[in-house]
Amino acid sequence: MARKNILFIMCDQLRFDYLGCAGHPSIKTPNIDALAARGVQFSNAYCQSPICGPSRMSVYTGRYVSSNGAHSNFAPLRIGERNIGHHLNPLGVRTVLVGKTHMKPDTEGMQRLGIDPESDIGVNHAQAGFEAYERDDGIHPDTMVRPGLPYNEYLKSKGYGEDSNPWHWAANSVETEQGVRSGFFNDRVDLAARVSDEDSETPYMTRRAMDFLAEDDGETPWLLHLSYIKPHWPYVAPAPYNDMYSADDVIPAVKSDAELEDTNPLMKHFMERVAGKTFGRDEAREKVIPVYMGLITQIDDQLGILFDFMQQRDLLENTMIVFTSDHGDYMGDHWMGDKDYFHNPSVKVPLIISDPQSEADATRGTTDASLVELIDLLPTFVEYYGGEIPYNILEGRSLLPKLHGDTPEWRDFVISEYDYSCQVFRPETGKEPLECRSYMVATKDWKYVHAPGYPPVLFDLKNDPDEMTDLGRNPDHEDIRQSMFKRLGNWSLHYRQRETWSEPHNIKMTGMEEKLGVLIGYWDENDAKGKDPKILPRRKPNTTT
Amino acid sequence: MARKNILFIMCDQLRFDYLGCAGHPSIKTPNIDALAARGVQFSNAYCQSPICGPSRMSVYTGRYVSSNGAHSNFAPLRIGERNIGHHLNPLGVRTVLVGKTHMKPDTEGMQRLGIDPESDIGVNHAQAGFEAYERDDGIHPDTMVRPGLPYNEYLKSKGYGEDSNPWHWAANSVETEQGVRSGFFNDRVDLAARVSDEDSETPYMTRRAMDFLAEDDGETPWLLHLSYIKPHWPYVAPAPYNDMYSADDVIPAVKSDAELEDTNPLMKHFMERVAGKTFGRDEAREKVIPVYMGLITQIDDQLGILFDFMQQRDLLENTMIVFTSDHGDYMGDHWMGDKDYFHNPSVKVPLIISDPQSEADATRGTTDASLVELIDLLPTFVEYYGGEIPYNILEGRSLLPKLHGDTPEWRDFVISEYDYSCQVFRPETGKEPLECRSYMVATKDWKYVHAPGYPPVLFDLKNDPDEMTDLGRNPDHEDIRQSMFKRLGNWSLHYRQRETWSEPHNIKMTGMEEKLGVLIGYWDENDAKGKDPKILPRRKPNTTT
Repeated sequence: MARKNILFIMCDQLRFDYLGCAGHPSIKTPNIDALAARGVQFSNAYCQSPICGPSRMSVYTGRYVSSNGAHSNFAPLRIGERNIGHHLNPLGVRTVLVGKTHMKPDTEGMQRLGIDPESDIGVNHAQAGFEAYERDDGIHPDTMVRPGLPYNEYLKSKGYGEDSNPWHWAANSVETEQGVRSGFFNDRVDLAARVSDEDSETPYMTRRAMDFLAEDDGETPWLLHLSYIKPHWPYVAPAPYNDMYSADDVIPAVKSDAELEDTNPLMKHFMERVAGKTFGRDEAREKVIPVYMGLITQIDDQLGILFDFMQQRDLLENTMIVFTSDHGDYMGDHWMGDKDYFHNPSVKVPLIISDPQSEADATRGTTDASLVELIDLLPTFVEYYGGEIPYNILEGRSLLPKLHGDTPEWRDFVISEYDYSCQVFRPETGKEPLECRSYMVATKDWKYVHAPGYPPVLFDLKNDPDEMTDLGRNPDHEDIRQSMFKRLGNWSLHYRQRETWSEPHNIKMTGMEEKLGVLIGYWDENDAKGKDPKILPRRKPNTTT
Repeated sequence: MARKNILFIMCDQLRFDYLGCAGHPSIKTPNIDALAARGVQFSNAYCQSPICGPSRMSVYTGRYVSSNGAHSNFAPLRIGERNIGHHLNPLGVRTVLVGKTHMKPDTEGMQRLGIDPESDIGVNHAQAGFEAYERDDGIHPDTMVRPGLPYNEYLKSKGYGEDSNPWHWAANSVETEQGVRSGFFNDRVDLAARVSDEDSETPYMTRRAMDFLAEDDGETPWLLHLSYIKPHWPYVAPAPYNDMYSADDVIPAVKSDAELEDTNPLMKHFMERVAGKTFGRDEAREKVIPVYMGLITQIDDQLGILFDFMQQRDLLENTMIVFTSDHGDYMGDHWMGDKDYFHNPSVKVPLIISDPQSEADATRGTTDASLVELIDLLPTFVEYYGGEIPYNILEGRSLLPKLHGDTPEWRDFVISEYDYSCQVFRPETGKEPLECRSYMVATKDWKYVHAPGYPPVLFDLKNDPDEMTDLGRNPDHEDIRQSMFKRLGNWSLHYRQRETWSEPHNIKMTGMEEKLGVLIGYWDENDAKGKDPKILPRRKPNTTT
């Protein structure tokens, strides 16, 4: 049987609509568009939390955020949660990482269970199940930068050594008339980063992926998770990408003055964050979005290089390619910046899958509008490699049948969750962390946001696809709100922690007590008529009384 | 500070209403009644699953069944779930077991995490956090009996050695004219067990508890979990308890012919089980219930001996005593036998707590009708021993304030869950195991049972306290059903797996990103006005650009 690989590309903070193949009027992404032309574009894909860490933990575990418990950035994923390595390694597949996972190990849990963090088991946990060929979570402020970060060592070796943290002061800063300016400020991001294109993050990480591929032994199946940090902020790009686009390429914000009136109070907190205030101004959008677009084109250029490299090594013919993002970016839509809330620019993600197998020929170049969750990826991978999907653990569905032209029964709503306990505004809410829960349930027609202690939010997606009008308190929509809450409640009322019994085992255990001679409520032997006589209690040696 | 101990007594399958102090018209339980007179009787206590294993796992973890994942008898509790030992041992308390836990270790999980089952950590897990002074899960059919079971070795040493499993053929069988008859058949349980009172299970286990107490060093605080198997079936009692009561003591079944008409289909499956058919007959009730009552009086007699023993050793003055059961027993009410469904005889449990501290003097002899869940016990224990209750892990509430006369804000509904996937009738339902979910939510006024794929069940507890009339499909009760489902949904929409971050830690992490210099969406320094200047990005050495 031919070897199978997967190239699992994830960008960070890439909006679902900022690709040529997704319909953006001016962005250039020819390589990604070509990928879509030979694969399937899933136009209704949603992350399970619109923030890096929780979204990624749900992808790497194949479980909803409230199932795996990693609710916030930097909240450890608990030891015991099975990760992508646990699911794929037993199928003979190496799971390899180049880039970001945002995985934080559960050191307290490992200590409680006597697991050595340096052991294979401890390292597997700490790397979310990947062999960390190169691990780089992408955001390295001076207070947090890892000593010896390989990308920083690389930059120093290329002469960017004037600072101890060139990731920040070279790759994510610009040169102004007043001197060097950090890219954490957005007012000058139109200027070029203080590194060359070649030395910037995306090409560096792409070359690291090619380094791994160059070592390929031609036999061992692998999944390579190429996990870029861009176009996540700092929104700084090297020449020529910083000014490849201009204000002319900036689509007007999807927002209305009406959104500022009688705003849902939780939504309002997000609008009032610094990021909301900044991106609520057209000046900021016109400065930043062209750079954001440039970073995306840079990714596309690098993917072109990578795909050529793979083509030369005959790797494209046996490698499924998955292209996605962990979440989106408001970029000023709905008066918001960054992510964290549930409008489409934040919670929808691009998802393109190209399966090289002939079974997928029928769907090449098509768009699939099914409601997809990123937790569908792990079961897809398991099925692709020939494994059995453990439905008591993995909560998504394999997309393989769709790639192969089938139309399996499918979900009619998607879920995303967001824990806002770490938001700067939490003290204003008066809520304890465990109360800071928000949930999105969306069908094709309606999107409903439930946040205990706040009025719900409701969008009529058929008539208001831009999600401008919140019907959460509209008296005429009480029935639909009830119905959406019911969907959410029914989704929640599932056994998501029954991990010690697979479905096949559970089926075997049906009626087991009786088979073992544990007779419950039997009056006499007549109650055993028609059953296996072996279940009758017998004294040794084989008396029947 | 005076040492504090807890004697945590749990019976198995003891109905909430089969005690003198609970109002039973003829049962004799003077010692338990006296305990209630010096403590608090909680008259509205509910188990979190009306079946042994899941109920106990929820007690020993302090977490709902769907939170801890141990859904069925014999389903392992996963490694990683914190148990009563994890919560109490760090407070300097020994947690000791005499009797039953029904804990099944997660051997697969331990293997996956490299934990030696023989290590302290492995053993702690396998014993649900107890030192197993004597571990005995109580039901030992010939097919499953543990070789070397201490109680069997004891019986053999007392001359009951004619069978290799005297638990079954001596202690839980009777002598009929035709010979020895297993107590798994109920038709002759009026006859005496083939062991003396002294050699039967309850006195044996009580003596083992006294053996432990005799070794008490007078210094180390302990929690002793004295966990009896009786009055769980086999309903066989030694003389004089087998015929201490008669058919005259049998309260008529709480059932009506109307319950058999248009029965909720899931409820009907339970009625049609062998146990339902048996106990639906008055003849069976009149045979079995007197023995059931005898077993309860035997427990009471043994507790009298135990309390005297403790009194002699000055242990009563510093030992909180908790008396409860893991679930109830239908005994023919509602045409059902055994447990597993959600009527009160099955899901309510007795709960008596006597706290010897002077703070509890004000409530001695009172009855508290608050809605209590058995998962309240573990936080009560933690608070009693002076610990901080970790609300991100423990899902119940401490009862200590109530014992001390306070009236804290309290829940207005209780939850119980039942996974029916292992029931013999599952194949008839056409359901996969993960679909076999049933949930009970009950307020003081209403009880609602939600089981996906079945109509709901609704009881009007104020007007129909005997739960005879199912309003689950009554058109006039749609609003109340919606309201109860909403309660259930809201209960479910909680973050129950966020175990790696305590509340205090989560509070510390609020706004942490900004404090670490991760500025999101800042335009320029004006966005930092009024904030700690240290968050501004600075180049080394301390330049401001």
